[in-house]
Amino acid sequence: MHIPKGYRFAAAQAGFKKVGKYDLGAIVSDVPAVAAGVFTTNKFKAAPVLQCREMLADGRKMSGFLVNSGQANACTGDQGRANCRETLNMVARALGVPADELLPASTGVIGAQFDLSKWEAAMPALVKSLETGTAELVARAIMTTDTVHKLAHASFEMPSGEVRLLGMCKGAGMISPNMATMLSFILCDADISTEAWQTMLADCVNLTINRITVDGDMSTNDCVMALANGASGVAIESEDDYVTLRKHLLAVLEELAYKIVMDAEGGTKVAFIQVSGARSDGDAEKVARAVGNSPLVKTALFGSDPNWGRIICAAGYSGAEFNPDDLVLKIGGILVFRNGTPEPGDMDGLLKPIMKERDIVIHINVGDGPGSSLLLASDLSRDYVSINADYRS
Amino acid sequence: MHIPKGYRFAAAQAGFKKVGKYDLGAIVSDVPAVAAGVFTTNKFKAAPVLQCREMLADGRKMSGFLVNSGQANACTGDQGRANCRETLNMVARALGVPADELLPASTGVIGAQFDLSKWEAAMPALVKSLETGTAELVARAIMTTDTVHKLAHASFEMPSGEVRLLGMCKGAGMISPNMATMLSFILCDADISTEAWQTMLADCVNLTINRITVDGDMSTNDCVMALANGASGVAIESEDDYVTLRKHLLAVLEELAYKIVMDAEGGTKVAFIQVSGARSDGDAEKVARAVGNSPLVKTALFGSDPNWGRIICAAGYSGAEFNPDDLVLKIGGILVFRNGTPEPGDMDGLLKPIMKERDIVIHINVGDGPGSSLLLASDLSRDYVSINADYRS
Repeated sequence: MHIPKGYRFAAAQAGFKKVGKYDLGAIVSDVPAVAAGVFTTNKFKAAPVLQCREMLADGRKMSGFLVNSGQANACTGDQGRANCRETLNMVARALGVPADELLPASTGVIGAQFDLSKWEAAMPALVKSLETGTAELVARAIMTTDTVHKLAHASFEMPSGEVRLLGMCKGAGMISPNMATMLSFILCDADISTEAWQTMLADCVNLTINRITVDGDMSTNDCVMALANGASGVAIESEDDYVTLRKHLLAVLEELAYKIVMDAEGGTKVAFIQVSGARSDGDAEKVARAVGNSPLVKTALFGSDPNWGRIICAAGYSGAEFNPDDLVLKIGGILVFRNGTPEPGDMDGLLKPIMKERDIVIHINVGDGPGSSLLLASDLSRDYVSINADYRS
Repeated sequence: MHIPKGYRFAAAQAGFKKVGKYDLGAIVSDVPAVAAGVFTTNKFKAAPVLQCREMLADGRKMSGFLVNSGQANACTGDQGRANCRETLNMVARALGVPADELLPASTGVIGAQFDLSKWEAAMPALVKSLETGTAELVARAIMTTDTVHKLAHASFEMPSGEVRLLGMCKGAGMISPNMATMLSFILCDADISTEAWQTMLADCVNLTINRITVDGDMSTNDCVMALANGASGVAIESEDDYVTLRKHLLAVLEELAYKIVMDAEGGTKVAFIQVSGARSDGDAEKVARAVGNSPLVKTALFGSDPNWGRIICAAGYSGAEFNPDDLVLKIGGILVFRNGTPEPGDMDGLLKPIMKERDIVIHINVGDGPGSSLLLASDLSRDYVSINADYRS
């Protein structure tokens, strides 16, 4: 793995989750880094989301991330904000970082207040871990219902040297096209302006992480935050430099987005829902979201049932404007439906092997308009229900 | 049961569903009746929906309903329309009713064409059944994944005599606030104008059947159709008459709506989601729908988990405009959340017995606006997934 230069990692078991699980993590940049962030649009924003938005508002450099799993610190009011600041002070002191340069993130159960004594007790282990801690350890510490930790990385040559990118994320449920209970941290050792980094991040998140759905729920805690500390000595200055870095950032985020859907709670499938020919991208997205969020489509995916009627039906109530006679549906490249009727022949027999695959491409063309959209969607299984019916018990 | 005067019922086993199940039904009015209908807004409308809309367009009287389950006759193109007309001719001939006065409805799998030889073969049994057939038999013939047949009735005195109302419906999945794979037939023996009957029906459907959700999917076949044949000899003329009949029609539709959610596929709960204080009814409905369609809320309901955080979270991403600090949440009458934080005390302990009930009232006030909305929502269980993953196999 190509770890960007100038970052250290730490994790500890503070007891927010079950005993024996990492649930506290920190990433420290040796020098203050250019910072960018994209956050949930949910009206109820968790304390750490509010804190980060404030900290990033004036474009200051940041020195790292502090993250915990097990408790979301959401719907916790003024006390939650105070606790968030208190944990930043505590960890900053312990790790020798300015408290106002440590960006917080939390994920887990909504509503409960932090037990600060648990945080205090974990400090020595966190400090010790900073010596030998790895990115993988932090990626593990942010897991909740995730079954695997999620990392993606890239390294590439620029005219003035090598640049490295590392992304990690957690997310498996409460996932919707506009973020999710999804935390993602991106590290880069290029030297780039705050404005360019923020624009690049927002742009790439919109094409990747914002195009996935597990259950259509958008969490109070979602965030993607990125640091670029310049430790590679490579400056991003020309248009070409920008394009190269953006290409690799996009690839890292694409990989993370796919990994989230692949690890969807109880998920067994990843549907690539491609909509084209719509009047606008917005209309295309309506179709993709209606199909990707339909419980009937999702259960059919789970059952490997080529039930194209449910896809057509969801497109029909999506609210997008199109002529139903123009809709053409292909599944796994096979023409299934056009001119308002299914294609003749043994469609079920043809589609059966395709439906048994993990990755299933569903292409829906709704006309000859310029609008298109891609959405990655998980299926809906009995295990999803079990995981979420019993999450707190 | 108070069966409205002047209607006869018939059902047969045509073999569209498994052998030994009723899947063909007809209701005949002895005299042509004033007819009204409300239909799905899905862009893909099934052949019988298109047929009924045409037939009802000019306000003519109708003599009955023809309904089949097992096949939806949706996405069947011109052939489907022709088959729909052919079955109307066949049944009209057999039952001695004008074909252009028989309103068709279908429910079941999308895409397959009718096998007209099965229809032909069922005619003698259908004709014979008309002599002794009951409303219950027809209510059974329209079931698909329903576990119980659904009837509701009312009878009441008007100044000039007694009036009877009977409603039947099917529906358990593909149910969304704007109709569903939901067929409903209403019979009345009052004498009322077409215009008043249509207005009353649309108005009452909007307050009942359009306020339920199982899975947020809106079907290609939804319809509520109503006949009023005047056989009671009671004319609805004054404002008072109208108000009285409307009150009872509303009650019948409320009962049917509740029965659909109670019989939701795999469902074990009925959540009454009441939203008030919104800027508009539309905003209130956004909150109610976000909460009622959230898979995380629905799985928590299934698990009897008082996971209020998921309710708050769904309200937060609903798209409705409100100040999060104004939101007040009550579950089963117990104050759970206000001022951005949960109420102190053992909320889980207090809520546990409430969550174990079948009917759970969730009240969400989001401010002091005039907008309100009610939505009845089912939970999401492992059985829902099983039913829909294996529906066609």
